[in-house]
Amino acid sequence: MKLYYAANSCALACHIALEEAGADYEAAKLDMRNGDLQRPEYLAINPKGRVPALVTAEGVLTETPAILAFVANAFPGSQLAPLDNDFSFARVHAFNIYLCSTVHVAHAHGYRGYRWADDDTSLADMRQKLPRTMGACFELIETSMLVGPFVMGEAYTICDPYLFTMARYAQWDGVEIERFPKVSEHVRLMLDRPAVRKVLAMHT
Amino acid sequence: MKLYYAANSCALACHIALEEAGADYEAAKLDMRNGDLQRPEYLAINPKGRVPALVTAEGVLTETPAILAFVANAFPGSQLAPLDNDFSFARVHAFNIYLCSTVHVAHAHGYRGYRWADDDTSLADMRQKLPRTMGACFELIETSMLVGPFVMGEAYTICDPYLFTMARYAQWDGVEIERFPKVSEHVRLMLDRPAVRKVLAMHT
Repeated sequence: MKLYYAANSCALACHIALEEAGADYEAAKLDMRNGDLQRPEYLAINPKGRVPALVTAEGVLTETPAILAFVANAFPGSQLAPLDNDFSFARVHAFNIYLCSTVHVAHAHGYRGYRWADDDTSLADMRQKLPRTMGACFELIETSMLVGPFVMGEAYTICDPYLFTMARYAQWDGVEIERFPKVSEHVRLMLDRPAVRKVLAMHT
Repeated sequence: MKLYYAANSCALACHIALEEAGADYEAAKLDMRNGDLQRPEYLAINPKGRVPALVTAEGVLTETPAILAFVANAFPGSQLAPLDNDFSFARVHAFNIYLCSTVHVAHAHGYRGYRWADDDTSLADMRQKLPRTMGACFELIETSMLVGPFVMGEAYTICDPYLFTMARYAQWDGVEIERFPKVSEHVRLMLDRPAVRKVLAMHT
């Protein structure tokens, strides 16, 4: 397998999951700022021009929650998701999809507002609101989603590297993560994991 | 099971899927405009204050792609997803997650821009860009995602009611769906299905 990623993009979550799974994979680093994602050779792999993309023996996969679920299924021995219970797995999915469609989207308004509006004043308006939107997301995560110590409780799952990735975004976006004790403890636990340290070193 | 929905919200996709699966379920209609989604009794079910929410014997599920996958797994006889192939199922997920995190998000900027910006001029800017952002999404769906006649090819899956729901949004957003032959044919095929007709009548 080959993971296309960009440093500190949301591909970090899949990258950590592959490492935790003990997968035999290659990581190919692209540079968003010099246009790597819009080159024809990359668009042939992922027509969306985004990362992550995971090239497997069966074809290319995109979208972080889908890749994370695939990794959990492909490496059942790593126990990265409750594979034997459809409802529990659906809860894992639902958490990751919230991160993808609400939290990551909120974050993107601070940097890529041009996706949805044209005027500089609109983009500035989005940027000034960013700490509030990301703060509201993490308030909800702290109070009604994160069981602790890991997202789903005692078991480490594919939710954890993705929350870790979004918690970094929140800090960059001006959210004082210390307001959220469970999230703060989660970040600390993640930083203790060898797989996380190894992958973070590849995202500098 | 009990599906909480609002007329013409993205809950339409889950509603159709439950119907196609032959599920024994109750549909509870909420009215977004009179604040049903923010009432304490609904927030106790779904703290996000959004629809859909599916109450199951094991607990509450949210997020359209997660609910759709759960329905496909819970009713294997209805063959709403390639349950025996992890990669193919991951592709189904990836398509639905694109609709959730990119297409539905683009649509929301025409109506709920206040989630990400404060000024009226910013919201107007988002609204004027809407036909272009939704048009670009459907261009990508037409050229690189929708196999035809259904999203994944000959087999009807949980991707189809969700694409149908987003294609309705695109039309409301000023996209001339006729520009996209495969999407137009998909809408026509969907409107022929008894489950779709039955559920649409409950979304007026």
